[in-house]
Amino acid sequence: MNNGAQKAARAFHVDPWRLRTARIDPADLAACESLFALSNGHIGLRGSLEEGEPRVVPGTYISGFFEERPLPHPEAGYGFPESGQTIVNVTDGKLIRLHVGDSPFDLRYGRVDFHERALDLRAGVLERRTDWTAPNGSAVRVTSRRLVSFTQRVLAAISYEVEPLDDGFYMALQSDLLANDEAVEASRDPRDPAPLTRPLRGELTDSDGHRAVLVHGTARSRLRVAAGMDHLLDLPTDAVTTMESEEDLARLTVTCQLLRGQRLRVVKLLAYGWSSRRSAAALRDQVDAALAVARLAGWDALAAQQREYLDRFWERGDVQIEGDPALQQAVRVSMFHVLQAGARTESQAIPAKGLTGPGYDGHAFWDTETFVLPMLTYTTPEAAKGALTWRHNTLPTAMARAAELGLGGAAFPWRTIHGEECSGYWPAGTAAFHVNADIADATARYIAATGDQEFAMTHGVELLVQTARLWASLGHFASEDCFRIDGVTGPDEYTAVVDDNVFTNLMAQRNLRAAAEACTRWPEVAARLEVSPHEMDRWQAAADVVRLPYDDKLGVHPQSEGFTDHGEWDFEATPPEDYPLLLHHPYFQLYRKQVVKQADLVLAMHLRGDAFTPQEKARNFAYYEARTVRDSSLSAAPQAIIAAEVGHLDLAYDYWTEAAFTDILNVHGNVDDGVHIAAAASTWAVAVAGFGGMRDHSGHITFAPRLPPKLSRLCFRMMFNRRTLIVDVHRDESDRAAAQAATYRLLAGDPVETSHHGTPVTLKVDDEVTLPVPPPPIVDPVTQPFGRTPQRRT
Amino acid sequence: MNNGAQKAARAFHVDPWRLRTARIDPADLAACESLFALSNGHIGLRGSLEEGEPRVVPGTYISGFFEERPLPHPEAGYGFPESGQTIVNVTDGKLIRLHVGDSPFDLRYGRVDFHERALDLRAGVLERRTDWTAPNGSAVRVTSRRLVSFTQRVLAAISYEVEPLDDGFYMALQSDLLANDEAVEASRDPRDPAPLTRPLRGELTDSDGHRAVLVHGTARSRLRVAAGMDHLLDLPTDAVTTMESEEDLARLTVTCQLLRGQRLRVVKLLAYGWSSRRSAAALRDQVDAALAVARLAGWDALAAQQREYLDRFWERGDVQIEGDPALQQAVRVSMFHVLQAGARTESQAIPAKGLTGPGYDGHAFWDTETFVLPMLTYTTPEAAKGALTWRHNTLPTAMARAAELGLGGAAFPWRTIHGEECSGYWPAGTAAFHVNADIADATARYIAATGDQEFAMTHGVELLVQTARLWASLGHFASEDCFRIDGVTGPDEYTAVVDDNVFTNLMAQRNLRAAAEACTRWPEVAARLEVSPHEMDRWQAAADVVRLPYDDKLGVHPQSEGFTDHGEWDFEATPPEDYPLLLHHPYFQLYRKQVVKQADLVLAMHLRGDAFTPQEKARNFAYYEARTVRDSSLSAAPQAIIAAEVGHLDLAYDYWTEAAFTDILNVHGNVDDGVHIAAAASTWAVAVAGFGGMRDHSGHITFAPRLPPKLSRLCFRMMFNRRTLIVDVHRDESDRAAAQAATYRLLAGDPVETSHHGTPVTLKVDDEVTLPVPPPPIVDPVTQPFGRTPQRRT
Repeated sequence: MNNGAQKAARAFHVDPWRLRTARIDPADLAACESLFALSNGHIGLRGSLEEGEPRVVPGTYISGFFEERPLPHPEAGYGFPESGQTIVNVTDGKLIRLHVGDSPFDLRYGRVDFHERALDLRAGVLERRTDWTAPNGSAVRVTSRRLVSFTQRVLAAISYEVEPLDDGFYMALQSDLLANDEAVEASRDPRDPAPLTRPLRGELTDSDGHRAVLVHGTARSRLRVAAGMDHLLDLPTDAVTTMESEEDLARLTVTCQLLRGQRLRVVKLLAYGWSSRRSAAALRDQVDAALAVARLAGWDALAAQQREYLDRFWERGDVQIEGDPALQQAVRVSMFHVLQAGARTESQAIPAKGLTGPGYDGHAFWDTETFVLPMLTYTTPEAAKGALTWRHNTLPTAMARAAELGLGGAAFPWRTIHGEECSGYWPAGTAAFHVNADIADATARYIAATGDQEFAMTHGVELLVQTARLWASLGHFASEDCFRIDGVTGPDEYTAVVDDNVFTNLMAQRNLRAAAEACTRWPEVAARLEVSPHEMDRWQAAADVVRLPYDDKLGVHPQSEGFTDHGEWDFEATPPEDYPLLLHHPYFQLYRKQVVKQADLVLAMHLRGDAFTPQEKARNFAYYEARTVRDSSLSAAPQAIIAAEVGHLDLAYDYWTEAAFTDILNVHGNVDDGVHIAAAASTWAVAVAGFGGMRDHSGHITFAPRLPPKLSRLCFRMMFNRRTLIVDVHRDESDRAAAQAATYRLLAGDPVETSHHGTPVTLKVDDEVTLPVPPPPIVDPVTQPFGRTPQRRT
Repeated sequence: MNNGAQKAARAFHVDPWRLRTARIDPADLAACESLFALSNGHIGLRGSLEEGEPRVVPGTYISGFFEERPLPHPEAGYGFPESGQTIVNVTDGKLIRLHVGDSPFDLRYGRVDFHERALDLRAGVLERRTDWTAPNGSAVRVTSRRLVSFTQRVLAAISYEVEPLDDGFYMALQSDLLANDEAVEASRDPRDPAPLTRPLRGELTDSDGHRAVLVHGTARSRLRVAAGMDHLLDLPTDAVTTMESEEDLARLTVTCQLLRGQRLRVVKLLAYGWSSRRSAAALRDQVDAALAVARLAGWDALAAQQREYLDRFWERGDVQIEGDPALQQAVRVSMFHVLQAGARTESQAIPAKGLTGPGYDGHAFWDTETFVLPMLTYTTPEAAKGALTWRHNTLPTAMARAAELGLGGAAFPWRTIHGEECSGYWPAGTAAFHVNADIADATARYIAATGDQEFAMTHGVELLVQTARLWASLGHFASEDCFRIDGVTGPDEYTAVVDDNVFTNLMAQRNLRAAAEACTRWPEVAARLEVSPHEMDRWQAAADVVRLPYDDKLGVHPQSEGFTDHGEWDFEATPPEDYPLLLHHPYFQLYRKQVVKQADLVLAMHLRGDAFTPQEKARNFAYYEARTVRDSSLSAAPQAIIAAEVGHLDLAYDYWTEAAFTDILNVHGNVDDGVHIAAAASTWAVAVAGFGGMRDHSGHITFAPRLPPKLSRLCFRMMFNRRTLIVDVHRDESDRAAAQAATYRLLAGDPVETSHHGTPVTLKVDDEVTLPVPPPPIVDPVTQPFGRTPQRRT
């Protein structure tokens, strides 16, 4: 953790339902832009100040809107993608610049008398109040509230109020739509976004009264975006307003004298629309229509709808924690960001950083299916469906890619916005074929958890079949009793292009079986997809004998063939500043050593826990724990989940907090370009799957809850087959060592069959079941690589 | 073989000492530019016509002169080279444009009445005669001779004669120095060169009388090159000459009326100089001085020196073949090109294509040490010394690279001009660490074959020590009796980043042992390099237990760990146009299958034949023969050598001819951008090591000659410890099935201990030894991948 992170640690006040800061520190600025970003999954506004500056990355994003850029390879290779996709910072509508007398409102000058910003997790509103004395001596209070509407997908709104704190002043307020704001500079960190220079070309400018629309297009991806603003004004009677517009700028200027006791309020309404097909005029009309609706609703109705939407979300999925208020806050902030990323994507991807920043070029990865969709499936199933629908929509591209690679079925891209492979480094991109099994796993989970037959028949079975076909062509029968999958990369990016990665093979096994089962259940879909009984037999045969390497000498599963024969990394000789290792050591060194970037076999033991005995889990966990450096934000949570399962409750708790504070404490030093949506979702998973012990193998859900010593209670809600379950793990509050119990409740609907630590349980509505929690297994201590032990919270 | 190659097959007349063509076919043009290229290892002039056009790639190169270019990576990675090096087409001095009356002399117009070009391998001169009738009806004979001097390293010369074949005409002759001639276009074939646009910046122009000098510099590599021309003129008395010069062009124009019976002759003298340090004026003076010397010598003296130099070369190294005149020619052409590439580099690299074209960006690879230096060591040891001196000069860069990669000793680049790693694809670049052992092997071979103690002490031991240090840090002791080298790439580029590649491990073993032996022999050098007895012990210990995977079930060595477990390539389903596979299939498919681009384990069985039993060689050869597609020009010769050893004499012969005709028949379709120097050198190796059975393990040379059925005699000369050996394998000429015998002769010096098919032999001066050749072992037939059987010549 770097100093910036240490400072950030103190930036936020602990509050169960708000992320709140009173600090103005240039070092916090970019992180606050990310953490205070608002999104509904369609529109994303980074949390930059309305006045525009100071700022670091003042991004505005629309899901699915990207520009292409060449991917130059120093040495060309067959199948290397030649074009990348980069999320575009579209027309910025957040800007409301204020001039107090002759001073621009800018917190870097003058004096800040009071400042607070807070993201309200129940209201879905970013609030802000600043009392400021300008260099010219005028004192002013600025109060703003901002939302990106969960209920009106194309709308955002800002309520902006100005009051004098002295006798008053002349003032000017400029509300902008600004396109092609400057780009950030290129970086050498492969996780950083590729810069675009002025990606938007003006196509249409239209303004009228307090309303303006700018339509722009991109040169290579040939997409078109319309951004519109309108204003509801509450002004002193002598105020003058003017509207100007040109290609890259539309600006409403309000000038007036504001006297003590007077207040100026502007509600700025924003609408965005984009298309690859609709004309500039059609998009302009679309945005104008949305603005007309927004005018009619006004701020209060939009804010009320927003709160109602979130009330329903928390009713379905809240996680309550007693005993660690900061963790409670972090878990809810994390869940809120996941919801924001996924809520209204509606057939667009959920990027690794949501719409909170330009990190990873705005690409979606396997993270979405493996980490994000479990939380959405069990709390906001419509959002999970939207994300899987996006994958289904890209099936033609994935099937073409498979054919290009000489494979059957579909080869989904490692990273993309629009569906085409955008990875420039195939050993950690295209070779990571497990993304296909991850998509299948998420598909099967969504169908099992929702019973959404229609989705299964129109989308799900096809996703399962085409990914199963990939595995059938990618693996080979080395003999009748051995199906190998050679030359692929598993989740751990510090090992690449290996044979029989256990995670990949187990997930492929599940994929093959799920496809066969789905074809049996929906034979008419199977027939449409030309799946023969022979093909299904072959999937089953491959699944039955898929190879799982095992090291008899060490009694552990090698992560992949030969892994445990490799040299050990010299952790003692690796100084803290060498992490993340990939920025300071060549891939070839990382690949040939037993150093693990992120949970790989340990993640397999979570997602495919049914394939390991408890003893194997304990031994494997200890082995990989000593070799996993967590240079990925996707590692702490799987480690927490398995630590909890095998009995390392304190360690699990430490990893939970590491995952939960990933962004609030900037653990990986790159929250500046967006929050980590998958890490945020994995924070939920530690609650539910880790300390709640929830597993969903084969479509059934089971629980094995157990509290860590620090907590007195953990209560979570989740959806299963349109019913809400509540699992409440608690103990005698006066005694942290006291026996624990879990209470299960079902809020409505038919009974649910589940189990508690292996004991079958039938849950019925209004029939609360409380069962004792058995004591944890006794375990030998485990160690982490030198210097990589998680921060102790216990 | 493509149609172009088929046509090329008929392009050249069979002639034991000349490469000769009478054909003018646009399809041959680029290949002729490569095959008729002249070089002394310092200057290279492609074989384009003096008149400049038609042409494809009119290159002029100077060894070591390059421009840098950015290597853009779509995803950055630690240790990825950010700058590449590309050979520069420097100022072209070959141009002599002729205007006959009002027609430019251009073979695409008018009528060609006679045309012949020939590269004379004994004279070292490219000759040409063309009788041409211009569109305007004038008939002219142009005769030219061209040489790049082996004895005067900075000089080239062209003798150019013009005679009327009718009553005569007015004519103009323009002799140019032309810089920044247009570049070729970018290609998607990774073997193709990266284009540079106008890389030369004019710094100085100077002319006087018939002499001109242009000095240019490069922008990024900051090198400077001077090109000068002077002329010896034999003109009609009324001829007028004018000299013009500007930044990128100097031009001598000769105009006259040429009548029947008159002849105009121009001897154009060319001198080149370059430096990273010397000023433009100093380089101008240097070139002027060289031109002054050339004027003094004149054409005849330069040509006489040239022939004398080549006489000595053939005396040391000629290979005589009876029974296949076309092969005889091809072997000599090949040897001539190897000599040209290496003769006078003097501490510059020998590029993969010599100085015959821009292919592979002008980079040198492991090819030089593994394929080219054996021939040079045994025929032109000074040239081998020069190439190794270049490696030694780049040791600081290689040691810095090793440190950057977290390794000890030196990590020599996979491809480079100046010493820095220029590979843009590390799995087939940096990971191919065997280049270091290849350099050590060539070093040890040179020292053993020449007894050059001074080189050993100043250069050789250090090369051995720093490469041994690399292996000591790159490998690890998995246990006391197992030293593994994980995560590296062997010679076969269709398998990458694997554990315990047998070739690499055996070459590393030799490297470690050679370093320890050298340190024992030259303790004062070892002390200077701070080699401790402990370090030497560690090298020996590692060498003694280096891991060699073996597949007990199949009874063969896997090329690398797990290779024989991989899936088989579907050769039957692979159409001919899919070769080379790397242009039509992704790396991940090639890597995870048992498909071999080029001899890897088979090459190990040649270079480290001491590590295999005859039975292992036979089984391994058969196994890899069935999986090797020869998508590299470096494969046929090693396959020929082992085929000959294990007893497949016809197959060995087929591979020999494939190697020998690599360029003449354009087997790999890319002779256009230069001839394949390593394949050319490997053609020599098939004669000497294949059918001559020469091995040089541990510094001793042994022979096991055996003629293929088609040949009646093979006689080769080679140098060993400053002595010339002659090995003459022959049989009763009237009966191809008759018993064979080998006659050994030593031309001068102390006796040489060797062996003939395992029988010790002592060779003394003037003491001819003739021994019978035992019959070949009886062998089972072997097969190649479907469609990849070499063309039958037998």
